[in-house]
Amino acid sequence: MALAAETRDDAQGLAFTEAAAQLKSALRHELDATNEVILAHLGSRVHLIPEVAKHLIGAGGKRLRPLIALASAKIAGADMTNARYLAAAVELIHAATLLHDDVVDDSALRRGFKTANVVFGNKESVLVGDFLFARAFELMVKTGQLPVLNLLSRASCTISEGEVLQLETQGNIETTEAMHLDVIRAKTAMLFEAAARAGAISSGPSDAEEALGSYAENFGIAYQLVDDALDYGHGALGLGKTIGDDFRERKMTMPVILAYRAARTDEEREFWREAFSRGDADFDRAKSLIERDGIGKAALEHAQGFADLAVNALTALPDHPLKDVLREMAAASAERPF
Amino acid sequence: MALAAETRDDAQGLAFTEAAAQLKSALRHELDATNEVILAHLGSRVHLIPEVAKHLIGAGGKRLRPLIALASAKIAGADMTNARYLAAAVELIHAATLLHDDVVDDSALRRGFKTANVVFGNKESVLVGDFLFARAFELMVKTGQLPVLNLLSRASCTISEGEVLQLETQGNIETTEAMHLDVIRAKTAMLFEAAARAGAISSGPSDAEEALGSYAENFGIAYQLVDDALDYGHGALGLGKTIGDDFRERKMTMPVILAYRAARTDEEREFWREAFSRGDADFDRAKSLIERDGIGKAALEHAQGFADLAVNALTALPDHPLKDVLREMAAASAERPF
Repeated sequence: MALAAETRDDAQGLAFTEAAAQLKSALRHELDATNEVILAHLGSRVHLIPEVAKHLIGAGGKRLRPLIALASAKIAGADMTNARYLAAAVELIHAATLLHDDVVDDSALRRGFKTANVVFGNKESVLVGDFLFARAFELMVKTGQLPVLNLLSRASCTISEGEVLQLETQGNIETTEAMHLDVIRAKTAMLFEAAARAGAISSGPSDAEEALGSYAENFGIAYQLVDDALDYGHGALGLGKTIGDDFRERKMTMPVILAYRAARTDEEREFWREAFSRGDADFDRAKSLIERDGIGKAALEHAQGFADLAVNALTALPDHPLKDVLREMAAASAERPF
Repeated sequence: MALAAETRDDAQGLAFTEAAAQLKSALRHELDATNEVILAHLGSRVHLIPEVAKHLIGAGGKRLRPLIALASAKIAGADMTNARYLAAAVELIHAATLLHDDVVDDSALRRGFKTANVVFGNKESVLVGDFLFARAFELMVKTGQLPVLNLLSRASCTISEGEVLQLETQGNIETTEAMHLDVIRAKTAMLFEAAARAGAISSGPSDAEEALGSYAENFGIAYQLVDDALDYGHGALGLGKTIGDDFRERKMTMPVILAYRAARTDEEREFWREAFSRGDADFDRAKSLIERDGIGKAALEHAQGFADLAVNALTALPDHPLKDVLREMAAASAERPF
């Protein structure tokens, strides 16, 4: 079980994995077409560009953001050619931010594979990220919908803001729950929300935009909160990210905010302060304090609150088979995976 | 004269400086308004973002790209509100690439000031660059012109390709003139060209687009070739970039390509090969070889050829006072500044 203790699967709980697979299967045809659009737009006469891009994008990932964009487009009754361009653009923006994230965080592993910055270098990751971001806008232009471009350029600003905010809270043990939710909303939930909204309006205005946007935003928050909790927990067997990454990078996340608040002695408070100001602290101790105080459970309950908001947002929409699948996925997102 | 030997002014020759000042003065009102648009769009609730952005954008620069965009819009008779958004967007794209460039090149000085990566850090520069890029697209959306967005998203792809190409030629002494021109066209001339074209069509199609695009592309190539030559030459007195940066970074530029070809002995060829494969070589020797063989002059003649093409491109345009100023600036761009 050494592997299980050291790594975790990217997927959250089993019910979530199943719900995501159901969404993928319901949209199989559209997702395949979107993947083709993505591949066709990674091409460049500069060979290193598709090489770096395919290293990341080819390494898998759940394609949650394009799936949400495609589902939203279907529910809104949008033209699917536009929706595919849009879904591909959203995945390229996501890929660009991952490339830059891994440089900024100096990460070595993603989805069980060496990161692009390790394989190709930081410089290459920065520049290919820029290329993917530009390509994403080229794809959006193809939809011919200025509101889509407006939405996603604003969302991209917000994502960078969230990344800088995260950098500012890094190592700061006094980070509050509100500050952390602010980071999560900007850096993660914004792109989920923008994917849903843009999908809904990818061929014109849609009454479904608000509800889908609200669904995706709250789902995104729940998703990130669970992801943060997993970094201190035990993942399913299988290759995935190493656990303890956030701790080693002194990234403030909900389990730490809650554990610091729950600390019983000055010595414990000092442990957390030191761990996040100087780094290089004892991860096993952090994990055991989090376990002792039931923080993992509390963090997941927190996530559950947002999952419930996501589910509720859907009630404003007319019936649609994909609506049920989206509901399923959000409901399962905060399920205790360990 | 120690300062003159160590640093150079960003400005090329005196006639060029005067021509650029003339363009600035002819467009003073529009440029001021554009600067206001830029400032208004650097705002963010995350204070570090305007701080990093203003460190770079406030540090001056000739604003050549927005000036070319504004001049093109005027010549094409475009609506100037759109043109200002567009000119601001072009400058933000330029600023984003500079932030990322300085990270990629590990540069310490730009325009005589410490670079943002030195003052704020690499991570901050990468993320704020992303923010500026996203903001640029937000500004472009305000023009309501999809062809402008199409043009500039494609140009942004090409710029990243050029940066990656440059990374690939770095340290490779066998880089040919053609390869280097390819890099220059993509990483520098493309944004000049896109600024001119987008300016011309910033409120709708224009017959002036082709001529202005061709002017700006060739002007951009001349401008970069002179910039490359200056890195091995003596600049005007005043604070500027240190010279020898390209050499130390093993960046292949025209003077080196020509000097390697002109080498008289195997020992000299070996000197260049070593200098660009291992780095850490004798800059004074490189400079004296370049001087001995009149390479500085040859590189500037090379630039002059492109300046001539830029001037010729303007003949297709109807008479306009700004056309004369643009002609003046291109004609002076390859003037020997030392």
